[in-house]
Amino acid sequence: MSSCPVITISRQYGSGGRFVARKLAERLSLPFYDNEIITLAAKESGYAESMFENAEQVSSYSLLYSLSMFGSANGVYGLPLADKVFLVQSDIIKKCADTGPCVIVGRCADYILKDRPDVLNFFLYSDMPSRVKRVVKYYENTSRDVESDIRKRDKKRAAYYNYYTSSRWGELENYDLSLHTDKIGIDACVDTLELYCKAYMAQKQ
Amino acid sequence: MSSCPVITISRQYGSGGRFVARKLAERLSLPFYDNEIITLAAKESGYAESMFENAEQVSSYSLLYSLSMFGSANGVYGLPLADKVFLVQSDIIKKCADTGPCVIVGRCADYILKDRPDVLNFFLYSDMPSRVKRVVKYYENTSRDVESDIRKRDKKRAAYYNYYTSSRWGELENYDLSLHTDKIGIDACVDTLELYCKAYMAQKQ
Repeated sequence: MSSCPVITISRQYGSGGRFVARKLAERLSLPFYDNEIITLAAKESGYAESMFENAEQVSSYSLLYSLSMFGSANGVYGLPLADKVFLVQSDIIKKCADTGPCVIVGRCADYILKDRPDVLNFFLYSDMPSRVKRVVKYYENTSRDVESDIRKRDKKRAAYYNYYTSSRWGELENYDLSLHTDKIGIDACVDTLELYCKAYMAQKQ
Repeated sequence: MSSCPVITISRQYGSGGRFVARKLAERLSLPFYDNEIITLAAKESGYAESMFENAEQVSSYSLLYSLSMFGSANGVYGLPLADKVFLVQSDIIKKCADTGPCVIVGRCADYILKDRPDVLNFFLYSDMPSRVKRVVKYYENTSRDVESDIRKRDKKRAAYYNYYTSSRWGELENYDLSLHTDKIGIDACVDTLELYCKAYMAQKQ
């Protein structure tokens, strides 16, 4: 059987997607990159780790402006902060993928790795009531309006993706498989993604 | 284990989706409705079968106009032809689902059955080069520009769906699982959908 692909997982906030991703990585014995990327990126670039923590937020200036800044500056240092962070993280994501099969969550990894032939991209989502329950239970959100918090998080993820890529976050054709997590539960989602990965490897032989 | 759900499958033209749907129905020993719906609808309504053949085309007048016509007429008989066909087919699709678990392809079945609690909705798509190959091989398309034919077919499916529903064709959140068929092949797609269906039944117990 051919070797495992690099797997990227995008997910709605509170969909259980990050949890599925971690379990899938365990199941396939692959390295898992999520906050780990932030730490790696921070170490690699010499920037403070805190700078990366809110990376999935983006202001409204255009990427063209950023690129023009890029042309006139020395490496990433002339860029606005958010763009510096994106470029440093992109570099780290590419290095992770170069190192071997792994599972990478979020941060436009599907787009950043789009030119590699050995990548599978998954998207996970679910209904609002179950997302509210998960966010309250696992992220200990005590806000009065959890649903509004969730929508804001998704908007930020979408804005980040739409700003840095030429595509749209959650657009079906960006992904090889998209799953609604509620109807079958977390473990069965992991089973489904594992089956897809193994079928992909069998076909590549 | 609880009983099998009603399964609807939407698909891009040439993605192999109809073929996957038929194999899934065989695998789960379920009735399969595709052109069969047309025949059933034709028999049931007394309309000529040929009237239903091009049902997935829609003209540009608004649904509001159709509904106002509906109010002033006797049953579906005062409606424009395309809307009559849609209403008769919707009725047939609901009756199929009422009869028991089955696989239904296309014709807005996901939307028509949205109020049932026992439905799984799948969407299948693939890359243009493999769609061109399939259309040439299986539909014996000898046109000079097969790709253009495929895009036109998809546009018609999207227009039909967008006209008759309050949603958008191919919008990820309309479906429980969406699959890119190329990367794993037809049989593995059937395996994946079967796994999802069985996990759904296990969770419903």
